[in-house]
Amino acid sequence: MQKVETHACFGGVQEVWQHRSQALDCDMRFGIYLPSQAREARCPVLYWLSGLTCTEQNFITKAGAQRYAAEHGVIVVAPDTSPRGPQVADAERYDLGQGAGFYLNATHEPWSAHYRMHDYIVEELPRLVEAQFNASDARAISGHSMGGHGALVLALRNPDRYRSVSAFSPIVAPAQVPWGEQAFTAYLGDDRDAWRSWDASELVRSTPAQANRPVLLVDQGEADEFLATQLRPELLEAACRETGYPLRLRRHAGYDHSYYFIASFIGEHIAHHAAALRN
Amino acid sequence: MQKVETHACFGGVQEVWQHRSQALDCDMRFGIYLPSQAREARCPVLYWLSGLTCTEQNFITKAGAQRYAAEHGVIVVAPDTSPRGPQVADAERYDLGQGAGFYLNATHEPWSAHYRMHDYIVEELPRLVEAQFNASDARAISGHSMGGHGALVLALRNPDRYRSVSAFSPIVAPAQVPWGEQAFTAYLGDDRDAWRSWDASELVRSTPAQANRPVLLVDQGEADEFLATQLRPELLEAACRETGYPLRLRRHAGYDHSYYFIASFIGEHIAHHAAALRN
Repeated sequence: MQKVETHACFGGVQEVWQHRSQALDCDMRFGIYLPSQAREARCPVLYWLSGLTCTEQNFITKAGAQRYAAEHGVIVVAPDTSPRGPQVADAERYDLGQGAGFYLNATHEPWSAHYRMHDYIVEELPRLVEAQFNASDARAISGHSMGGHGALVLALRNPDRYRSVSAFSPIVAPAQVPWGEQAFTAYLGDDRDAWRSWDASELVRSTPAQANRPVLLVDQGEADEFLATQLRPELLEAACRETGYPLRLRRHAGYDHSYYFIASFIGEHIAHHAAALRN
Repeated sequence: MQKVETHACFGGVQEVWQHRSQALDCDMRFGIYLPSQAREARCPVLYWLSGLTCTEQNFITKAGAQRYAAEHGVIVVAPDTSPRGPQVADAERYDLGQGAGFYLNATHEPWSAHYRMHDYIVEELPRLVEAQFNASDARAISGHSMGGHGALVLALRNPDRYRSVSAFSPIVAPAQVPWGEQAFTAYLGDDRDAWRSWDASELVRSTPAQANRPVLLVDQGEADEFLATQLRPELLEAACRETGYPLRLRRHAGYDHSYYFIASFIGEHIAHHAAALRN
């Protein structure tokens, strides 16, 4: 594992590391913000999943999350959005292939050789982070757009792995929208039954009722250009209403799909996660 | 004047505008953050000058300033760093020509036709901002690196125009460092006497003592890769000591030249300016 960037930031340090991923069979980079508290004690970790076209850079340079992570003593890990490299399958589209891993394990050629982002994010990356940094095993997860889909799906599939979950502008029902239909057809094949376990709205319906299900905190801008076609938060809202799943969906007038929206509310999300991680 | 971007952000709006500049004789873009307070009343304005290679985008996407501007009710205007366009002289270097205007009025060919950033920033842009937006004529100025040089020089040259000034990692003595020597030779010619009025350390020596000179607030990272060769804050420190000019130079262990440094302290700068702008 190799450190490729390090910058003092809000009393802590923003780093970027490169390592060989076993799950993805390629070299990967991730950003990690280590607040000053991590010099003294193990700190809980928020995993942030970015959206289509992003790398590990977008969130760490644009969201302004370090200020709040420093305040609450939370480590923030921001991985890349797909396997990378010349040997990794790709498509000539922004919404499929490299930069568009959709946080699932692909089962179909040519994607299945490398596209195992679920296993990378849920298992390999936390193992690495908890071994190499002063990180505890108290984990939270959040993300934006495709990464909001990832955060919801990974938390719903792995309820014992995350203490809290939130999302900005998530693709809540990928099986019913163009971005998800295209990606799932490529990565998972034509059988739509196989898509259910990678769709947050479907998972809410199939998750057994538990006493301690963490609330889904979802922020959505009402001026988001993808709201009606790709995001459709009302589908998650309906699934949660039907099953009694706890959802806190906040609609924000005027906000769009950009990092200006994320920056405006990331402080509230980090406070939300920090409260759950302290328990 | 044409709006090319608009994003809700921290209750206000981050916009980007394009307009024809008379001073520069080309089309220019600038970012403007309008806090919610500007819907009700004229707000004071902080002008932010960016560093080499930057456009109007870097500060507005990376500094996280909107949060503090919203808190204090300050409009933040972030112009581009030089005239732009195919008809504008350029050099095959990152530190001369487009992206490297050095906030001066060039006197030598081929630069003098367009490179009049001093007049653009000090006169044309505030006139435009104060006419088109809910902006008062209470102005402050700040910047980073080449833009820190710009902020100090413009404030020292135009003491009646700005109520406060600050800088991150500024080029405090351009006449004595490679970046400045190269740019000044091109833009101003070989006569070093002509350079003095564009050099903050020289201006501190030549500025007549006044009762109400605003303190120069300067933040400098000690791990800045340009500290010893291009920035040399000790030269400004010496000039201020000799002349009794008020300087508040803060050196920060571990911080580098990046936006992670700016983000960490921009809140304190905006609070500093807001206090001066309220008077």
